Amino acid sequence: MPLVRLSLSQSYEASIAARASGAVHDAMVETIDVPPADRFATIRRCSEEEMVWDRGFLDVDRSDRVIFVEITLAVGRSDDKKRALFASIARNLAAIGVREQDVFIVLTETSRVNWSFGNGVAQYAPAVPSS
Amino acid sequence: MPLVRLSLSQSYEASIAARASGAVHDAMVETIDVPPADRFATIRRCSEEEMVWDRGFLDVDRSDRVIFVEITLAVGRSDDKKRALFASIARNLAAIGVREQDVFIVLTETSRVNWSFGNGVAQYAPAVPSS
Amino acid sequence: MPLVRLSLSQSYEASIAARASGAVHDAMVETIDVPPADRFATIRRCSEEEMVWDRGFLDVDRSDRVIFVEITLAVGRSDDKKRALFASIARNLAAIGVREQDVFIVLTETSRVNWSFGNGVAQYAPAVPSS
Repeated sequence: MPLVRLSLSQSYEASIAARASGAVHDAMVETIDVPPADRFATIRRCSEEEMVWDRGFLDVDRSDRVIFVEITLAVGRSDDKKRALFASIARNLAAIGVREQDVFIVLTETSRVNWSFGNGVAQYAPAVPSS
Repeated sequence: MPLVRLSLSQSYEASIAARASGAVHDAMVETIDVPPADRFATIRRCSEEEMVWDRGFLDVDRSDRVIFVEITLAVGRSDDKKRALFASIARNLAAIGVREQDVFIVLTETSRVNWSFGNGVAQYAPAVPSS
Repeated sequence: MPLVRLSLSQSYEASIAARASGAVHDAMVETIDVPPADRFATIRRCSEEEMVWDRGFLDVDRSDRVIFVEITLAVGRSDDKKRALFASIARNLAAIGVREQDVFIVLTETSRVNWSFGNGVAQYAPAVPSS
């Protein structure tokens, strides 16, 4: 159900860009019960002109290349699950060569009826047949 | 009021990409009372590296080219309206050459005061003059 | 905390595109108490095929080049603050050469625990140590 949008600096090697969405996906499977096959994402490599970030906000030491991880997902995860998700995303991205300080994440929650995975149907909130 | 973001495979013909936002817009006019002139969208054609999707999640048979339809809209539509919207989007996109299985949709709802259509004004929630 | 996404017509000069995110950021600092260093944005210059808008919806006289300002931010700003933000964004963009009529804005609000600014931590909603 999550839809992930990654924006990352063009200066990342193509191999890292290619693996980044998998790293984020694995974190969602590990921590917030996303099914392994529930994998949908866009990835955009941005030039310097296309991405803006502060190097030190909240005392995080960001480098000259960051990654924005925007996740639209269903409502209902607990705060603890979200914290576990953040930690796992940062850890998994670090494992492929992204500094943990450079991982910016924001979640946007939306209700289960707001999703269609194909065929024009709301798979997670199907219509109740009238009796 | 909706703002539509389309991400679709580069392998779609340019003519389909050009008509896709119209197909989505027509569905919103038909099913959720969007005014015909309320038309705002971005379209992005993605390379293979820029888009990730599962071929079979929830038993939907997706092909090698999908379309993600992300709609930010005002809160307040009923579940039935949303289901009608999904069905209409899929049908309208099918009419221009997109398989219904390849249509992924997510709605994000936001309040009416959260929109400005120009001139720095919240047209749908104007300030009440003090007496 | 806000994450700003700008989509603007390619026909804007590069210098305007470069300054647009600063104009939006300054408005957030001025009107909704965003810290000056809390600056994160993506900017996308769109071709004619990549952006759709109506020229006259709600009697706003839009030109052949518009700018969409999508802001994801924490919940909790008052309606008056939001109206002040809209006015300030339009004014600041006008100061760098964007017509106020061409400024389209939408806010999406999300809770404070939904943000990580690096290191895999929810900086605005840290875990409470158990006693």
